[in-house]
Amino acid sequence: MERCDVLAGHSEEPGRLTRRYGTPALRAAQEVTAGWMRGAGMAVHRDPIGNLIGRYPASTEGRETPALLLGSHLDTVRDAGQYDGALGVLVALAAVQGLRDGDEHLPFAVDVVAFADEEGLRFHGAYLGSRAFTGTLDPAALSLRDVDGITFAEAIRSVDGDPDALPAARVDFSDLLGYVETHIEQGPVLEALAVPIGVVSAIAGQSRLDVRFGGEAGHAGTVPMTRRRDALCAAAEFVLTVEAAARERAGVVATVGQITVEPGARNVVPGTAALTLDVRHEDDAVRDAVVRHLELRAREIADRRDVEVACRPVGASNGVRCDPDLSAVLARAVEAVGCPVRRLLSGAGHDAVALAALAPVAMLFVRCAGGISHHPAESVSVEDVSVAIEVMDHFLVAMAHRSLPVA
Amino acid sequence: MERCDVLAGHSEEPGRLTRRYGTPALRAAQEVTAGWMRGAGMAVHRDPIGNLIGRYPASTEGRETPALLLGSHLDTVRDAGQYDGALGVLVALAAVQGLRDGDEHLPFAVDVVAFADEEGLRFHGAYLGSRAFTGTLDPAALSLRDVDGITFAEAIRSVDGDPDALPAARVDFSDLLGYVETHIEQGPVLEALAVPIGVVSAIAGQSRLDVRFGGEAGHAGTVPMTRRRDALCAAAEFVLTVEAAARERAGVVATVGQITVEPGARNVVPGTAALTLDVRHEDDAVRDAVVRHLELRAREIADRRDVEVACRPVGASNGVRCDPDLSAVLARAVEAVGCPVRRLLSGAGHDAVALAALAPVAMLFVRCAGGISHHPAESVSVEDVSVAIEVMDHFLVAMAHRSLPVA
Repeated sequence: MERCDVLAGHSEEPGRLTRRYGTPALRAAQEVTAGWMRGAGMAVHRDPIGNLIGRYPASTEGRETPALLLGSHLDTVRDAGQYDGALGVLVALAAVQGLRDGDEHLPFAVDVVAFADEEGLRFHGAYLGSRAFTGTLDPAALSLRDVDGITFAEAIRSVDGDPDALPAARVDFSDLLGYVETHIEQGPVLEALAVPIGVVSAIAGQSRLDVRFGGEAGHAGTVPMTRRRDALCAAAEFVLTVEAAARERAGVVATVGQITVEPGARNVVPGTAALTLDVRHEDDAVRDAVVRHLELRAREIADRRDVEVACRPVGASNGVRCDPDLSAVLARAVEAVGCPVRRLLSGAGHDAVALAALAPVAMLFVRCAGGISHHPAESVSVEDVSVAIEVMDHFLVAMAHRSLPVA
Repeated sequence: MERCDVLAGHSEEPGRLTRRYGTPALRAAQEVTAGWMRGAGMAVHRDPIGNLIGRYPASTEGRETPALLLGSHLDTVRDAGQYDGALGVLVALAAVQGLRDGDEHLPFAVDVVAFADEEGLRFHGAYLGSRAFTGTLDPAALSLRDVDGITFAEAIRSVDGDPDALPAARVDFSDLLGYVETHIEQGPVLEALAVPIGVVSAIAGQSRLDVRFGGEAGHAGTVPMTRRRDALCAAAEFVLTVEAAARERAGVVATVGQITVEPGARNVVPGTAALTLDVRHEDDAVRDAVVRHLELRAREIADRRDVEVACRPVGASNGVRCDPDLSAVLARAVEAVGCPVRRLLSGAGHDAVALAALAPVAMLFVRCAGGISHHPAESVSVEDVSVAIEVMDHFLVAMAHRSLPVA
């Protein structure tokens, strides 16, 4: 927890925590973390995009030494809390420190990774750090520009990285046992269940749409109700339809986060209403069905009200199921520390989404106060964090037993 | 109609019609109109605020000569149509021209007034011209400032007016027969009824409120539907309640013209939703009842959803009933030209609202294409305008008969 405080001191902005990719603040946070890695007996290096990687060697190192990856990210959103990302790196570090303190080495190496860009605050890309790490980064991302016009490629060079080496950056993970990420929940489920930690079953897929209703603007005083084609009334019906559709289907969340009307005057009937739609569920087929249902309902509402509607998809990502075997080992570690095993869905995205392209993934969620994240009020308890570290200790031991050659 | 075209040529902006109070464009439109007034045998003057007044003398002029007021306004909204306001002045002028052409004088003077500020585009005041004319202008209005920081008092001086004389500006209307205004309907009712003109029964009163729902912002992926306090969903329910409440009550119009949500991000559940409410009806008691009903329903919605709501009145004006006797004379004039008499409510405000403080008022609406106003597409037909002028001719004759001393 003290280390979380130390990392939170490295920010681009005085008085609040903001740590984007390629900034001196992130570099400073990495330097501090690298020091702790070395203190835990790890060999430290940076990959071509600037992810920080510490390796705690296996009991027998060789060409084919298997490795287990633990980690999360060190970049933040603007005006962030101090646990989103950092906690996962530091829990992993604490678990390795436990091995080091017992002078224990496992039949596999433990790599702790601190990804350099997960939030995408600077270049608006998704999982730039972990995608580069896994060799799945679209080269087009190198042309993304920040608000100052600096390209991602330039930013990579500015931190002594090498954008040209990215396609080759993919480590040889021929014997990668898996990737396990600890993260704050960012939601209220564990708090409601009154448990400190939970095992993530899946990371939800997500559909993003822009929906625009087009009616007819008119004078608020002179157009009778029966002659109106009010775009906002159509949008309001749709907002409630979205809410009802999600409530009717277990695990679905659907959100209208933005809405704007034109002309947008107090005394003018809205002629257009534009809104955003965000639908998430762990099962891609369920999510697709909900989106199709909502598109149909939008058209029904529009037809009945004699207005136009256009639904435009603006992005989607499929759900990622956590690996059943790896998650079972994690769940047994939770039981081993005397906690009930609660499985829950992650509605937010994580580096584990990118890692799933390469290896089995599992995630451990830590209860956070009020479900608040991406906000300075983000908070976890020292007791819950200590449970998480204990779980990781047990998990490493269990993985060691699992990976022992059968006698 | 040609005169409407000529007036539309006097604008502050090239390519579109904008004519605010106190601008050279308005002054030029007044000069042209003053010339037409003189041509119709009228004596022309400006009052201390700059309203243009032409007097066509009575058959016998004296100290106690009664007068009938006809008119409308010459200022416009931004990017206006060319009939809103101007048409009423020019129909009145045409009717007086008819008297002049027949060398006819009535037992009362006919005053044609072209008010200098009805739309309130420059100083955001309501009926500044006609309120000054009737001596009901709040002196505080003189401190209103335009976007350049110029006060209304300074603007009055810049057009050779005299803000200090305003309290005394009220003419002695000891024998004012009434005020009759011709105006485009600005709505679709006459077009739907397929009649060229209509007699206004009343000008609706108006209630304006700001309504703000306050819930709890949250992550669109991690907060389950059952735990949300989504301010936009509450607002959407309210928007539909507003629509339903107005539809259920004859003649009520209610509009949510603006809505904004915070934080307003695609992946964040809205924490607050602020909207405007505009409710109009000719009967103040009905309007007040609708507003109270909607305030109650807003609270019910908020309570059920565990969100906060605040309803803040930001302005109201009472309805104005057109004078039954004056309107009856106008209706008979409509019958006299062979038109069916259709009575309709004015949902928009007019100078007649200010004049009602002083004299009986009546209004004649002219059908406009598609109900469109405050837009360059504003349009009336030459046939409908000619019907309106004919009605005014008949109306003047009828008023002359009515005002003749009983034998």
